[in-house]
Amino acid sequence: MRSRVGYNICMTSTLTDTALDQLSINTLRLLAVDAVQKANSGHPGAPLGCAPMAYLLFHKLMKHNPANSKWADRDRFVLSNGHASALLYGTLFLAGYDVTLEDLKSFRQWDSRTPGHPERGHTDGVEVTTGPLGQGIAMAVGMAMAEKHLAAVYNRPGFEVVDHHTYAMLGDGDLMEGVSHEAASLAGTLGLGKLIFLYDDNLISLDGPTSLSYTEDALERFKAYHWHVQRVTDGNDLAAIEAAIAAANAETGRPSIIAVRTVIGYGSPKAGTNKVHGEPLGAEAVAATKKFFNFPEDQSFVVPDAALKNWRKAVERGAGFEAGWKKLFEGYRAANPELAAEFERTQKGVLKAGWEKAIPSFPVDKAVATRNAGGVILNAIAGQVPELFGGAADLTSSTKTIFKPGESFHVDATSRNVYFGVREFGMCAAVNGIAAHGGLIPFGSTFFIFSDYAKPAIRLAALMKVHALFIFTHDTVALGEDGPTHQPVEQLMSFRAVPGLTDLRPADANETAAAWRLALERTGPCFFALSRQDLPVIDATKHDVYAGVSKGAYVLQEAEKPQVVLIGAGSEVWPCLDAAKLLAGEGIRARVVSFPSWKIFEEQSAEYKASVLPAGVPKLAVEAGSTLGWWKYVGLDGDVIGIDRFGASAPGKKIMAELGFSAENIVARAKKLVK
Amino acid sequence: MRSRVGYNICMTSTLTDTALDQLSINTLRLLAVDAVQKANSGHPGAPLGCAPMAYLLFHKLMKHNPANSKWADRDRFVLSNGHASALLYGTLFLAGYDVTLEDLKSFRQWDSRTPGHPERGHTDGVEVTTGPLGQGIAMAVGMAMAEKHLAAVYNRPGFEVVDHHTYAMLGDGDLMEGVSHEAASLAGTLGLGKLIFLYDDNLISLDGPTSLSYTEDALERFKAYHWHVQRVTDGNDLAAIEAAIAAANAETGRPSIIAVRTVIGYGSPKAGTNKVHGEPLGAEAVAATKKFFNFPEDQSFVVPDAALKNWRKAVERGAGFEAGWKKLFEGYRAANPELAAEFERTQKGVLKAGWEKAIPSFPVDKAVATRNAGGVILNAIAGQVPELFGGAADLTSSTKTIFKPGESFHVDATSRNVYFGVREFGMCAAVNGIAAHGGLIPFGSTFFIFSDYAKPAIRLAALMKVHALFIFTHDTVALGEDGPTHQPVEQLMSFRAVPGLTDLRPADANETAAAWRLALERTGPCFFALSRQDLPVIDATKHDVYAGVSKGAYVLQEAEKPQVVLIGAGSEVWPCLDAAKLLAGEGIRARVVSFPSWKIFEEQSAEYKASVLPAGVPKLAVEAGSTLGWWKYVGLDGDVIGIDRFGASAPGKKIMAELGFSAENIVARAKKLVK
Repeated sequence: MRSRVGYNICMTSTLTDTALDQLSINTLRLLAVDAVQKANSGHPGAPLGCAPMAYLLFHKLMKHNPANSKWADRDRFVLSNGHASALLYGTLFLAGYDVTLEDLKSFRQWDSRTPGHPERGHTDGVEVTTGPLGQGIAMAVGMAMAEKHLAAVYNRPGFEVVDHHTYAMLGDGDLMEGVSHEAASLAGTLGLGKLIFLYDDNLISLDGPTSLSYTEDALERFKAYHWHVQRVTDGNDLAAIEAAIAAANAETGRPSIIAVRTVIGYGSPKAGTNKVHGEPLGAEAVAATKKFFNFPEDQSFVVPDAALKNWRKAVERGAGFEAGWKKLFEGYRAANPELAAEFERTQKGVLKAGWEKAIPSFPVDKAVATRNAGGVILNAIAGQVPELFGGAADLTSSTKTIFKPGESFHVDATSRNVYFGVREFGMCAAVNGIAAHGGLIPFGSTFFIFSDYAKPAIRLAALMKVHALFIFTHDTVALGEDGPTHQPVEQLMSFRAVPGLTDLRPADANETAAAWRLALERTGPCFFALSRQDLPVIDATKHDVYAGVSKGAYVLQEAEKPQVVLIGAGSEVWPCLDAAKLLAGEGIRARVVSFPSWKIFEEQSAEYKASVLPAGVPKLAVEAGSTLGWWKYVGLDGDVIGIDRFGASAPGKKIMAELGFSAENIVARAKKLVK
Repeated sequence: MRSRVGYNICMTSTLTDTALDQLSINTLRLLAVDAVQKANSGHPGAPLGCAPMAYLLFHKLMKHNPANSKWADRDRFVLSNGHASALLYGTLFLAGYDVTLEDLKSFRQWDSRTPGHPERGHTDGVEVTTGPLGQGIAMAVGMAMAEKHLAAVYNRPGFEVVDHHTYAMLGDGDLMEGVSHEAASLAGTLGLGKLIFLYDDNLISLDGPTSLSYTEDALERFKAYHWHVQRVTDGNDLAAIEAAIAAANAETGRPSIIAVRTVIGYGSPKAGTNKVHGEPLGAEAVAATKKFFNFPEDQSFVVPDAALKNWRKAVERGAGFEAGWKKLFEGYRAANPELAAEFERTQKGVLKAGWEKAIPSFPVDKAVATRNAGGVILNAIAGQVPELFGGAADLTSSTKTIFKPGESFHVDATSRNVYFGVREFGMCAAVNGIAAHGGLIPFGSTFFIFSDYAKPAIRLAALMKVHALFIFTHDTVALGEDGPTHQPVEQLMSFRAVPGLTDLRPADANETAAAWRLALERTGPCFFALSRQDLPVIDATKHDVYAGVSKGAYVLQEAEKPQVVLIGAGSEVWPCLDAAKLLAGEGIRARVVSFPSWKIFEEQSAEYKASVLPAGVPKLAVEAGSTLGWWKYVGLDGDVIGIDRFGASAPGKKIMAELGFSAENIVARAKKLVK
């Protein structure tokens, strides 16, 4: 297995196919080694071990077009072990993507296109952001789900316009992470036959041999998930890897995983040890490695012409793939003009004109929980926004996020209802993968408290700027009897602190409708925090609720020359309105501001912000969550009624009253500010 | 399997053993049904299905003492499917713990001892707080780790003073969660032979049949983790369950899981469906269920004398267990007085007198990263605090949290070094379990960014108030090249918002030493945020650093009649000190406050707080993280230099300078406040 596979690069004119393969692979290996060495930071081990797999995929097996990394029907590739970024960047450069040798030379530097870990939207050809381990696995599952659903929806006999595979490369670290279990178990249940994993089975993790902490039989585990499993005993054996991938392709009813036994840091002096995992080899070892591969020891970033020419065949192959597909698509368009137009619209991420007219307005005569309003809205817009696709983490009946009549994607791939199971993290990461795939606007839902389980994926959605929606219900202690284990307290503030993540905490059904409109109109990730309990409804005939919500915060009820501003968020708007009435009875003029979104409010002009929260008028914020951030809006001369403790198990109304969310308490605290 | 197992309770005088078993089980079943019905909230399905297992464990198989739920050598029981709380409360009442029938009647009510989900410290006999699914599994793994380590450390031939099992009951939801994978894979690697899982394999989850989303072969999965697996085909077959548990007990080298096929809601009209999972049965179905079990349909909370008498045999058994152990322990004490004293001290959670003298002080002549200081401190106090036990999530060489020379608990159970693998969530939940077990002060460490993966466990540590330590390194964007996927931004603020969780972000090595002292002196969970980069050292000969840190924030450098207060947190104290010097050069007097802990600062008197952050003096907070919460301390007329965007991949110093953490920028912003 440690057989020498280096070839003298001077011999390029007389190279056999095998030698050309090896030269191409070794060129990639050493580009990665040089990039890490020059940056004096990075991970050379995985690139040295995994280069043969990357070469096979991008050079020979994958259907992709380096000239158009956005082509809709390309095979997707996810580098779940994102620390091997130098491998991916080197591959993208060699295969002809818009990544240059200069980019490789500025690996991990300020403002470069080659950051420490692959970042979607930052580097051509990078499908998703990876590095936080395990999530690439779940995003790949999401991509394969998207493909399966879109194929079921759009393909017609003779016109398989959606027909691609999702490949992911992953390491021991990915498989140790819990999200690998959630995603792989889900993928097995869904029978995602076009999902193929290449497991870099190198027996080494950062701390040392995997025997220290990871002795499970990963393939047996995947078998238990009903995956197709294979083993390749030598990661340098191109024929064996290719045969395994061919067998995985032939298996259409189950996802496939191929464990490829590689040598971490292959060709370098400390190959096969954790010493080559996460730091540069050092000048001496770099030279030794180059010598091993018969590359000049004193040169860096060497790209033999023959190797580059060979790699760049991917460009021609890619042009052919896309041209063929375009021809197919024109035939499809001729036969199915409406479907074709819809396909193109959704691929562009453009909403159907006038879709928002389908959003319902709620009358004031009946109190409604915002989770229920959300369910009504979802179904009302379902026809106009067919790209909506998602479900809940085994809480469908509680979060109300189901398209009626409730059929399952698992049973019928045209269905938009996904039963994700009790897998919050896997769900949200898969949602990110679906969003990254394109053509769909995915959502995942659960109780707000369990957003904690999915935090890493929600953060990644924000970092990737994908259009992913997270619908969290049971948003405060008012959920009641389930108690503190189920009652969010700090979650609102935590998620508001995530850069680029839009928070939407509507006060009622009509604000929920406005929030849904904004969530679809905006292009980045949003989360909803919706109530379990019924709430009164704002009169939409008197208020332009959408206009208000689209500013993040707005004056819901004005008072002439207000003496105090009561800021209510979500369900706490209602006790504020009650308090304003009581205060009015005592001759105190209180403005009530509804504050459904911090992120959107922050986008407004200083003038608008000051018009809502005027300087010189004391302010009292009321929200059933952490007080921590509210001081930014109320100032040290203001006040906050919030929750800086854990909740309690009791009926919701009882808890809310005990914790201070009564009109009476708001009045008392407001009066202290006014005097 | 659906055979009738109810017995007429009038026949109690002539009951056979079998009939008495059934009466006892059905009494438990119906107490749970009645508690849920009276609360009009809760989960009757699992109690009806799982009561036979609970009965067998608490009545017959477990070594426990209802009169002393804190007895050190008791078997532990974890109800991972915590929504079945009514089952646990009913069991604890019947077995003779300090849970009364009145408590069952006030299930899920304000101030009751029987909250919606089991809460450690709230109800006698509840070992850990459960409900957030999957975590009970990982906490049980932690408990079994604690037992294994303590047994290795304390037992002597003939004196097995630590010798107990950890049982956990769990459901499909627990097994779907990713943390089940992390914990079970770790447990398999560690060969935790005294860990026994009872899997309530009822084929139903909240949304419907598990076939909707969960089709894996769970036992095959556990086999892949090297667990001992068994299946019991009828959850009402006491003999079969008992035999399986006996076989699990006989297997000492591997953890065991027994899948017990039960019927959710057994005996109720909608048995076997998701309709009985999470809501009261309703009066009619309650009556029908009572009829099924031959209990009076018109009475609630019925406890037949024979059943109670039978259950309460657990009290006598328990007294015998503990008496036997006490006798054993006295023999042990006679032979090993020092060990016995140490055992008792650590079980009480009391630190060794004078232990803190082992904490090193760091000289000012050499800059040191606080992660490195942490490693030095850990090893310096290791001998004085033998109850410290923990490790990292495959980042030992980066987080420096290893006892030298670095042997592994996996290989030698007396070792205090745990290689947790890339399993942040599993690690932190196991740490909670170790802390809940007692006798150890556990810690887990990883990069601060990956605290996100473990958020649900860290929250649970705070809710349980366990003495668990979370050591997070690479605490800001200053970690550099790994880029935004690895750079924490919002994490500090998020964790500061968690009630009862102490934040410790020291500015240097000596504050790190003080933080370690506080982390051990305090009794609840703490997290450290430590730097990757080297930092100067505060002169401990001139400052009482411990006194300062123990106040949460303190004046590190005074200026006469300060015109501005520069508040630095963690590594950002240093540019503040530089800025103060530059400001002094311009004739501006700046006080510098070091702010290592918000939670501790909040505990101080209003006077102390005002003395550090005086009203009327403008304040500038500087921290390489979210600004969101700082306005509470600086006010709207103050300013914050922080990070409300994602980081970037580049050398750390470059990033810090680009994002405004230079003395020059601090000076510029401070001058705006002063004028």
